[in-house]
Amino acid sequence: MFTVDTYLPTRIIFGAGRLKELATAKLPGKKALVCVTADGLMKTLGIQDQVLDLLAQNGVETVIYDKVYPNPSRESVMEAVEIANREGCDFFFGLGGGSSIDTAKAVALVHKLGGELWDYASTGTGGRKEVTGASPIVTVGTTCGTGTEVDQYCVITKLETAEKLDFTVDALFPTLSIIDPELMLSLPKSQTMYQGFDAFFHNAECYMTNNHRNRLLDLYSVDGFKTAYQWLPKVLEDGSDLEARTNMSYAANILGGYSMGLDFVTTHHIIAQSMGGVFPKVAHGATLIFIAKEFYKRYTKHFPEFFDEMGEMLGTPADPSQPGTAFCRALDKVMAITGADQLKMSDFGIDPAQFQKIADVTVDVTEIDWDRYVMSKEEIVELLEASYR
Amino acid sequence: MFTVDTYLPTRIIFGAGRLKELATAKLPGKKALVCVTADGLMKTLGIQDQVLDLLAQNGVETVIYDKVYPNPSRESVMEAVEIANREGCDFFFGLGGGSSIDTAKAVALVHKLGGELWDYASTGTGGRKEVTGASPIVTVGTTCGTGTEVDQYCVITKLETAEKLDFTVDALFPTLSIIDPELMLSLPKSQTMYQGFDAFFHNAECYMTNNHRNRLLDLYSVDGFKTAYQWLPKVLEDGSDLEARTNMSYAANILGGYSMGLDFVTTHHIIAQSMGGVFPKVAHGATLIFIAKEFYKRYTKHFPEFFDEMGEMLGTPADPSQPGTAFCRALDKVMAITGADQLKMSDFGIDPAQFQKIADVTVDVTEIDWDRYVMSKEEIVELLEASYR
Repeated sequence: MFTVDTYLPTRIIFGAGRLKELATAKLPGKKALVCVTADGLMKTLGIQDQVLDLLAQNGVETVIYDKVYPNPSRESVMEAVEIANREGCDFFFGLGGGSSIDTAKAVALVHKLGGELWDYASTGTGGRKEVTGASPIVTVGTTCGTGTEVDQYCVITKLETAEKLDFTVDALFPTLSIIDPELMLSLPKSQTMYQGFDAFFHNAECYMTNNHRNRLLDLYSVDGFKTAYQWLPKVLEDGSDLEARTNMSYAANILGGYSMGLDFVTTHHIIAQSMGGVFPKVAHGATLIFIAKEFYKRYTKHFPEFFDEMGEMLGTPADPSQPGTAFCRALDKVMAITGADQLKMSDFGIDPAQFQKIADVTVDVTEIDWDRYVMSKEEIVELLEASYR
Repeated sequence: MFTVDTYLPTRIIFGAGRLKELATAKLPGKKALVCVTADGLMKTLGIQDQVLDLLAQNGVETVIYDKVYPNPSRESVMEAVEIANREGCDFFFGLGGGSSIDTAKAVALVHKLGGELWDYASTGTGGRKEVTGASPIVTVGTTCGTGTEVDQYCVITKLETAEKLDFTVDALFPTLSIIDPELMLSLPKSQTMYQGFDAFFHNAECYMTNNHRNRLLDLYSVDGFKTAYQWLPKVLEDGSDLEARTNMSYAANILGGYSMGLDFVTTHHIIAQSMGGVFPKVAHGATLIFIAKEFYKRYTKHFPEFFDEMGEMLGTPADPSQPGTAFCRALDKVMAITGADQLKMSDFGIDPAQFQKIADVTVDVTEIDWDRYVMSKEEIVELLEASYR
């Protein structure tokens, strides 16, 4: 019998043109530390000034922290905490993509509980202290990707020890998330493809892992992977199509976040993340795409009925002469239409000599125990070799 | 273009046999005031002792407030607040149906903010004070009905002035809701029918009102009305069918609560409520059933495509020779299979002489402005006459 387990407390205001509601929304404090990336992109796009103006209209003072880098670091978080304490900030505002939002989350944690961020990391060299709360977090996501806008995930790297650890606790759900797909109209095509496939897989993989246990997760993830699948070709054909951007953002930012907030991805994502750890300049979505076809060829044959049903949900009928292949055939179609199947590891500087290391990191560090299809190191190396071009 | 607006922060643990997780769930306090109805039903069914035992295992002290009556009163709420203050309770536990849960919610409000409940009522003789918070609320719903287990609704009556006012504010979302369909196996057949149709209409009406604006509400309400429609005949055929109870509870307690938490019902519900106000002994679900056929005959013809689509979602194809009738034909089927179409107002003591009063209350008191199909007093009287048998 199915069950439901859910806890998704973030208030969401989602829709084209709705950023302006930041001027009137109920906010959880009077002075915000606004976290943005060091590349000045939010400033260049005019979004930063717009947000500061809307916050001012709402009677909120702001302090900018504009030294967030990709893979945000413990060192940067602690620097931002110092600024927040000195300036008397009482809530934390992540503006941009995952790096800015995760920085705001980590700063909110240390601001509330004191001490040093790594005291609260629960693995590696972390101090394993309980996270009993965090100061309020507000997010305005401008990428169509991670779901951190609406979930409890937060990943920070400690430069000193090269550890990338997660601080995924209920206290890190944002209080409020405003998601405006108009802010995503200028995302470049490559990023749109990587983030779009990432969103498709977040939803599809959580659906696989869930295996119909949590009925509400099925509801979110099915709408998520179907919507991403339907709109990926359209958003890649015309990035200025607001309807396509709105649908992709709904699938990525809301349903992808909800799916990840309630369950886990599969080994597909873990291998791709390990590849990203070894080759940090390669976009996460690209690493997912590289191995997708070969990964699902291997996965789907173990659960043929389940994956024929998934294929049918994507409009690709099951074929009794090739049981279990409908999902792979659906995936082949969308990868061909979007050009994703043209991406080659060799073009991204990925060296097959590192495949063993990727397999080692995947198996040794992650200790996957939730996936229905767990692979050995040998199988991962074989998969990577089969995917290499 | 669609939008999403959501705020549904209650943690839900749902599933057959999951009441026992109350012994280990994280609870928001150390001493609970447990609200139950005065008829002793929870005691008779053994649920009350089981809950007290599980709370004790979780290290929580309990005080019972067992004077909750149907249509819970301000007077009862204030009596319970006094007990809670005297006993030092720090959270409020609603066990049973809507009356017990709404009592727990109202007590939690006054316990946190002090003063008198009616100070916080926002209409009628209420003091219109802002509700800035409430003490934590935990619920274990044992009926398959209202959705108050997971939403922010709370309705209390002031005996003195005969006002039934709502205290629907975000502070009244429960912290935790445990919903165990096994507790619903002994619900009598008539109550199962009334609550089942109530759940079907909660979801269907919110879907109509929403009109595709809030995409997440469409997701909840469509799964809600389809699931209730599918399982109503089965749960009425065999009330001990746990799969049927689980599906009905999911549609009623979770999706119905979510739909109502995010949007409003239609004039159908408002007229039925007014009828319940004039004839307080008639079950709410019965008043909905009495007028359903005639109400939707009138509603659906204004939006033929919309209601043909709804009918198709319920497995009844549109018929081009009778546009807009698919939903009504689907409704006719489920009312015939379940015997709901055999209910007669005359058998319940409803007197047509009161139809004008029902119409007056509906229009004058409720001031409906959200429904796409608003009726005049004359139209309501005509509808009631057409429904009378």
